[in-house]
Amino acid sequence: MASIHSSNEDIEAKELDTRSVSSSRNHSQGAPYIHKVGVPPKQNLFKEFSNTVKETFFSDDPLRPFKHQPKSRKLILGVQAIFPIFEWGRGYNLLKFRGDLIAGLTIASLCIPQDIGYAKLANLAPQYGLYSSFVPPLIYAIMGSSRDIAIGPVAVVSLLLGTLLQNEIDPVKNPDDYRRLAFTATFFAGITQATLGILRMGFLIDFLSHAAIVGFMGGAAITIALQQLKGFLGIQKFTKKTDIVSVMQSVFHSAHHGWNWQTIVIGVSFLSFLLLAKYIFLSDFTCSGEQGKKKKNLFWVPAIAPLISVILSTFFVYITHAEKDGVAIVRHIEKGINPPSVNEIFFTGDYLAKGFKIGVVAGMVALTEAIAIGRTFASMKDYQLDGNKEMVALGTMNIVGSMTSCYVATGSFSRSAVNYYAGCETAVSNIVMSVVVFLTLQFITPLFKYTPNAILAAIIISAVINLVDFQAAILIWKIDKFDFVACMGAFFGVIFASVEIGLLIAVSISFAKILLQVTRPRTAILGKIPRTNVYRNIQQYPEATKVPGVMIVRIDSAVYFSNSNYIKERILRWLVDEEEQLKEAYLPSIQFLIVEMSPVTDIDTSGIHALEELHRGLQKRDIQLVLANPGPVVIDKIHASHVATLIGEDRIFLTVADAVSSCSLKLVEEA
Amino acid sequence: MASIHSSNEDIEAKELDTRSVSSSRNHSQGAPYIHKVGVPPKQNLFKEFSNTVKETFFSDDPLRPFKHQPKSRKLILGVQAIFPIFEWGRGYNLLKFRGDLIAGLTIASLCIPQDIGYAKLANLAPQYGLYSSFVPPLIYAIMGSSRDIAIGPVAVVSLLLGTLLQNEIDPVKNPDDYRRLAFTATFFAGITQATLGILRMGFLIDFLSHAAIVGFMGGAAITIALQQLKGFLGIQKFTKKTDIVSVMQSVFHSAHHGWNWQTIVIGVSFLSFLLLAKYIFLSDFTCSGEQGKKKKNLFWVPAIAPLISVILSTFFVYITHAEKDGVAIVRHIEKGINPPSVNEIFFTGDYLAKGFKIGVVAGMVALTEAIAIGRTFASMKDYQLDGNKEMVALGTMNIVGSMTSCYVATGSFSRSAVNYYAGCETAVSNIVMSVVVFLTLQFITPLFKYTPNAILAAIIISAVINLVDFQAAILIWKIDKFDFVACMGAFFGVIFASVEIGLLIAVSISFAKILLQVTRPRTAILGKIPRTNVYRNIQQYPEATKVPGVMIVRIDSAVYFSNSNYIKERILRWLVDEEEQLKEAYLPSIQFLIVEMSPVTDIDTSGIHALEELHRGLQKRDIQLVLANPGPVVIDKIHASHVATLIGEDRIFLTVADAVSSCSLKLVEEA
Repeated sequence: MASIHSSNEDIEAKELDTRSVSSSRNHSQGAPYIHKVGVPPKQNLFKEFSNTVKETFFSDDPLRPFKHQPKSRKLILGVQAIFPIFEWGRGYNLLKFRGDLIAGLTIASLCIPQDIGYAKLANLAPQYGLYSSFVPPLIYAIMGSSRDIAIGPVAVVSLLLGTLLQNEIDPVKNPDDYRRLAFTATFFAGITQATLGILRMGFLIDFLSHAAIVGFMGGAAITIALQQLKGFLGIQKFTKKTDIVSVMQSVFHSAHHGWNWQTIVIGVSFLSFLLLAKYIFLSDFTCSGEQGKKKKNLFWVPAIAPLISVILSTFFVYITHAEKDGVAIVRHIEKGINPPSVNEIFFTGDYLAKGFKIGVVAGMVALTEAIAIGRTFASMKDYQLDGNKEMVALGTMNIVGSMTSCYVATGSFSRSAVNYYAGCETAVSNIVMSVVVFLTLQFITPLFKYTPNAILAAIIISAVINLVDFQAAILIWKIDKFDFVACMGAFFGVIFASVEIGLLIAVSISFAKILLQVTRPRTAILGKIPRTNVYRNIQQYPEATKVPGVMIVRIDSAVYFSNSNYIKERILRWLVDEEEQLKEAYLPSIQFLIVEMSPVTDIDTSGIHALEELHRGLQKRDIQLVLANPGPVVIDKIHASHVATLIGEDRIFLTVADAVSSCSLKLVEEA
Repeated sequence: MASIHSSNEDIEAKELDTRSVSSSRNHSQGAPYIHKVGVPPKQNLFKEFSNTVKETFFSDDPLRPFKHQPKSRKLILGVQAIFPIFEWGRGYNLLKFRGDLIAGLTIASLCIPQDIGYAKLANLAPQYGLYSSFVPPLIYAIMGSSRDIAIGPVAVVSLLLGTLLQNEIDPVKNPDDYRRLAFTATFFAGITQATLGILRMGFLIDFLSHAAIVGFMGGAAITIALQQLKGFLGIQKFTKKTDIVSVMQSVFHSAHHGWNWQTIVIGVSFLSFLLLAKYIFLSDFTCSGEQGKKKKNLFWVPAIAPLISVILSTFFVYITHAEKDGVAIVRHIEKGINPPSVNEIFFTGDYLAKGFKIGVVAGMVALTEAIAIGRTFASMKDYQLDGNKEMVALGTMNIVGSMTSCYVATGSFSRSAVNYYAGCETAVSNIVMSVVVFLTLQFITPLFKYTPNAILAAIIISAVINLVDFQAAILIWKIDKFDFVACMGAFFGVIFASVEIGLLIAVSISFAKILLQVTRPRTAILGKIPRTNVYRNIQQYPEATKVPGVMIVRIDSAVYFSNSNYIKERILRWLVDEEEQLKEAYLPSIQFLIVEMSPVTDIDTSGIHALEELHRGLQKRDIQLVLANPGPVVIDKIHASHVATLIGEDRIFLTVADAVSSCSLKLVEEA
């Protein structure tokens, strides 16, 4: 067969030859200079193992600053590592404090009304929201390393916690046990977070994909907004379910006699005020970290708008006594700071396991949110954030929180953004906020008595509305359709079923994507790009030409047990397709299969077997297997097994170009 | 900084320039010819989606032969696809039958004593083993596409099934329910297998890695052999646990009065005979598909040795009445063929769920074994095996089996090897075996009355001993240490805990490996290999040299949410390390970071964000981000997002060499 087309090949081969000169021939000698594939120096087993462990768990090299330091210095560094406040505290000055003071006062004014509303989402009394904005920020300020994050209760986690807890205990019938379970869950949320950090398993939170988070957050925001219809419309009987269908039924069933027009008037007017303030003055700060281009120096208008609304509406209700016309008001917030709650945590019994389970879920979600915020701002201000250290800080703060009547706190998107714009310099802004909350708890809570619930609803709606990130969703659609499915799955899961279902969908789709990635890696047929010595995917470069008698396939993934069979069969199928086409066109059949292995970073025993089987399968068709550019790990393993001798050392080349020129030479010789 | 070292750079840049001429300059013009990165033609959404689905579920293109065929032909092809017997049956002839007859008789002689023993492992009466060698092989012969597999009960699945069923129902106290649960599990094992095949989810079995299977099989073999000590030593009271500690305690506790010397004599002498026959005449056919070089034409000696042992020992016991001296014998095997058992399957009640769960596990393990065997022999005889079709065949055979008093059947390693050596041509050898088993059931079973249990134990020990595959384990150790951990984990899990625990360990470690792969991909620093234009990992090629002012990093994986953060941080860490080194050596600092993206086959929204953040992080350090050779999907997504304009279209190159020469030119211009 080869001899028939010898003239053709001859020409082609000469062409190849000329080209190969330019790349790999040593000009002075004229003989092809073919560089050998490097075999990396043998590592001993222990070193190999410790390197793997290091890259997996200590990829950020946390002990680096400790190297070559005297003992006393190591101690100081160690303390500073656990309590970063001792590090940045030394350089703290009045100028920085000015920024932190303004930022702290601003986020305090924002958090107080939010906290009261969020506590309701978690089915807890309003003071628990305030408690959670007092202790956890203090702990975080000492241990955390983000300079911009604002700590406290957040909408999504409050809703999630409320939903999960409600499945176990009815918060109306049995409020004491419910509260105790909430503390138990908070405790285990903290334990989960701290443990992940200490065991350096922080990478686990990376398994929730960005797309899934966008969808989940958007869905949760809408669910939360819908929940606010109760307070907003003044509905008395409201469903306990959170899915959109139940909520809408609830709303429409009560349309005739359940709505309170005074409440609606108050709600609508203040919501308009809040949204106006927000959209006129504040840039669109979304959870994906995008910034709009609005006036940043007027950040304080929307930031204090909620507090102004609260003050105005409370005063209004107080003088008109609108609560007698059916306008629901807060009525009572416990005065004084957090009572201890260690003895309320369930450390035994049935509720221990339930609290643990809820805590793990809530802790992970809270962690994801906090780390996402931390990373966003760290990259904006260009400082490093140690994910694992952050987890320990967040975990400790929730453990301490669970013992001081707080529920799960984390970083809030909206308040962190305000904190950032208000010019915070360090975590001291959290301390300022915490002090303000303390003063509020001590002295001002009775004043909230006449605050209408509709205002809290309006504040929550205007706060969560930013979590619906249309732009991010559109970008996801543009970039990756599979991600979009994950995003929408999570979104609709939350809206039409519940937060847990949405979360489950998000995690499942994320995992399915990973599995798909490892079972069905890509392969590509390569061709030569004209006027270069470069071989590229012919799908991407239609001008690339195939080399007669040679097929070049690139494997685009590590070859593992999960894909070795697929890869082997996929290559053989390329071959069959190709041979059929060649036959139809009366072109010379394939005699060499070059496998470009540059992207193959690793191969395991199943992969080695697949390679052997590929070699055997090709042998039966009289086709030579040639490898190009196997990486260090791969070449090592090819030598460790007998595959190197099976294929032949002289059939392993540094580049595809070298392999092609060698194959072409042989084709010419045969012809 | 750059100007200080200008002379140095100048020289280097010129050198680079000369080189770049040879690779990418158009000789006639003299201006650098830089080929643009190809943007693949836009696919429409539906096409993209259908392509993904096709590669995932129909990667073997099963409908290919149906293309361009008339309807009647399509029907015939369809029937042949479901029942391959109509395909190969047409070319069947006497010569082939001769091979199948010999092979069928041989495997029948091997399977009859094995079946009786294996039924015991599953805690079922001996005839159920024989039943399972009658119906399932017939079904498989019609529907299966492997020519060499020998169908019937196998040791590992029998043990697994026995262990799992025993956890639910005591086989001694409640044998009827136990048997019914066994049929239920078999039914659902079949349903699982067939469903996986029909839904084309066959790739799921690839998630059990080769290494894990080797360890699991080895451990199971040793556990099974240990179980045989009961029959082998004639122990009356034996533990029900399968772990080595319990079994050994059982054995030694009974050492004084529980052992029966006559039994031991019979057992030891026949086991010696069996092992001798095996190791002298049969090549080492192990589950990893390795073949030794012993005399293959004497395959029948070890193949019929078990039957000879049974006949001799039965005759011996019959004339000496050794059963009166405490030699345990089979006593009774039900005569006649399989009674129907549809009405025995639990379709309602508590046991339905339990049967389902056990069935799924047993079905998956049975499937893994059968597919591994099928693939091994298919690649040896070079024919294609459709995994999904095989699953449907195996599933159907177990569903039918569950209705005809069979328990889970699958392909047996040892009998398939004998079948192959005996010269089987098609699945007719299974039919022959089935007929022999039928005749045995109808006429010969009473003769087994005096067969000593010790013989069955010896036969099982000699059969399973080959599943301990030392060579494979050594090879795994050599190739991949992580695989070895999986292998040993499964092995010791089975031996020291139980088959389920071993299986769980095997699956968990396999999954952990996949997760590790996707969270911690490799990255490499590249350098230029002397006298070429090729850039390679400097760890693998220590002679490769770095380019001054430029750092070249290769990302060795698709960039997904699970690793995008790690990759970004890893690259920045490479940079910090490198800059420190350069500073110490008073060398020019880095001004360009070239990211070689050849191995990056895909990128998702998180990956795009990571790229943006990397760009932003580099900008703050006055370093330019340059991309080399992004693949079709990646370039598409880079354009879909605004990353392309952010980085600059002119900073995306076809090759690292192009990128380097462009960067060097700029460095020269600046200097």
